[in-house]
Amino acid sequence: MSSNPTWVLRRFPSGLPATDDFRLEDRPEPVPGPGELLVRTLWLSVDPYMRARLSTAQNYAAGQALGEMMVGGGVGEVIRSESPLFQPGEIVLSDDFGWQPVTKVPAASALRLDPSAAPVQTALGCLGMPGLTAYFALLHTGSPKAGETVLISAASGAVGQVAGQIARIKGLDPVAVAGSEDKLDSCRSMGYRAGINHRGADLQAAIAEACPKGIDVFLDNTAGPIHDAALLNMNRFGRIVVVGTVALASRFDQPDIGPRYLRRFLVQRLRMEGFLLDDFEAQYATARAQLLQWYRQGKLTPREDVLEGIDQVPAAFVRMLKGENFGKQLVRL
Amino acid sequence: MSSNPTWVLRRFPSGLPATDDFRLEDRPEPVPGPGELLVRTLWLSVDPYMRARLSTAQNYAAGQALGEMMVGGGVGEVIRSESPLFQPGEIVLSDDFGWQPVTKVPAASALRLDPSAAPVQTALGCLGMPGLTAYFALLHTGSPKAGETVLISAASGAVGQVAGQIARIKGLDPVAVAGSEDKLDSCRSMGYRAGINHRGADLQAAIAEACPKGIDVFLDNTAGPIHDAALLNMNRFGRIVVVGTVALASRFDQPDIGPRYLRRFLVQRLRMEGFLLDDFEAQYATARAQLLQWYRQGKLTPREDVLEGIDQVPAAFVRMLKGENFGKQLVRL
Repeated sequence: MSSNPTWVLRRFPSGLPATDDFRLEDRPEPVPGPGELLVRTLWLSVDPYMRARLSTAQNYAAGQALGEMMVGGGVGEVIRSESPLFQPGEIVLSDDFGWQPVTKVPAASALRLDPSAAPVQTALGCLGMPGLTAYFALLHTGSPKAGETVLISAASGAVGQVAGQIARIKGLDPVAVAGSEDKLDSCRSMGYRAGINHRGADLQAAIAEACPKGIDVFLDNTAGPIHDAALLNMNRFGRIVVVGTVALASRFDQPDIGPRYLRRFLVQRLRMEGFLLDDFEAQYATARAQLLQWYRQGKLTPREDVLEGIDQVPAAFVRMLKGENFGKQLVRL
Repeated sequence: MSSNPTWVLRRFPSGLPATDDFRLEDRPEPVPGPGELLVRTLWLSVDPYMRARLSTAQNYAAGQALGEMMVGGGVGEVIRSESPLFQPGEIVLSDDFGWQPVTKVPAASALRLDPSAAPVQTALGCLGMPGLTAYFALLHTGSPKAGETVLISAASGAVGQVAGQIARIKGLDPVAVAGSEDKLDSCRSMGYRAGINHRGADLQAAIAEACPKGIDVFLDNTAGPIHDAALLNMNRFGRIVVVGTVALASRFDQPDIGPRYLRRFLVQRLRMEGFLLDDFEAQYATARAQLLQWYRQGKLTPREDVLEGIDQVPAAFVRMLKGENFGKQLVRL
């Protein structure tokens, strides 16, 4: 039985997860049961939602048990199929990949990929969950009108980079918030009109300068101080879409204390709404087709940040939570 | 020239306004110009929005200047008309009444009232601005579905009492938050299913007990600790309508620091929206007709809290901001 190094959860992180919250175990290759596929992992994805699973608190995602294998999105090649729906050699996407080189996934959770349409790892990025998140959060929940200013935090990240490009395609005025000048340069090259370094001095003033007409739609991928500074620049009838709270990752189980803006909500008639991609499942196919079309037209260019090898999965996860990634964080096996 | 005791703003309040922030001056009766009406004041209204005008901060309402006459909603009898639209003897409603026994209002801001349809002061309460606020905040911004639980703060106040009755009429499940057992009894007699005293011990637990199925729509008339406790009881896809922030009246120009719930917004897909009645002006006539119909059918019963005489206007205003009123706060001259 071949060796299959597998990451398990060693302990629940108390703040920001660290690589030693995980343990690499030598496990045998899994044996697929009826309706399951045995898959050779090609790519693993690390995403902010995974932080929420590493907690005993009530959440939108089912929790991860201690000592159990870590699970997440991946792309791989079918090496054995116990389902009539898939054949060995096919490439599949699933949210149920274990963090291991050979894993099994339920055929019902797998989506067949066409490697001739786009590089397969884009199914984990601009053509997958982050791309769909950007698409629905901006175009549906954000309800933008042509010409409006859209502020996007974590703008060079997996969701932000796609949101900025969609905003440009749709005739909006996208402005980036990111954590380095390099990232902001990348954002501008993707179509963002302006960029703000959130590690600078006066974030509220910097946003005001970059958004002289104010903010109409704010795609909030971080919460925290960026949220606060953006709120104070929102236009009347502005919309705030709460897509992620990665700035709270290091104090996940503690209350977030800070200024509240209810009076501003009233005076400016702001609308703030929490976003979860699952709610749009019925429209995934349409959105995927649109994203693929933009990709093939050269209007949607992905930027990826790739670490190599199964050893690197926890490091990639921590790196992404700290905002050290530059583009969609992936691990190639 | 007859004496016409008139309230002016003596100083901007630093926190909760006090009666000595105002000064009573002996002024002559005003002289109406072209397009203006001279009116004998019958009723004056004091409303939370007036607090916002007593500040130099940017706001939705134009500011009140120091040393100038206080202005607000009122009902009165036309004693002289410089407009072809109105005749002496007619009863009019306007937002431009001075706090004085005889005042002048622009005919363009005046609405003629039919004293045979309902007592004229209801045009300042359940059939006027507070009634319209309850109507649009609940039925439009709140987007309630039949059977949903609606939590309403300041529930026996001008807006809350109407909102609770509309919720009952529409087949919703209204739950009151108010500051005394007497007020809660009154709320229940008006149609609220349950009531919570916000001066009790554990507000979050009390709301959970009174709303066993959670809160679907929260009409927030206060902000502050009631808002916080309600937020923690919101159902998935719950809507929070920010109608007022009277709990912040005593620290109006200071930041409001406290717990923030962005993570909960995301997990529960909550929507929070600021409400301002002006945005619904095009639909006032329809809503007024509906409110009047409910009133005449006995489905909408107003409760009023009346002080007597021009001397009492600042006291009525402060009383209302402190939540000491029991029903719509009015002053009868």
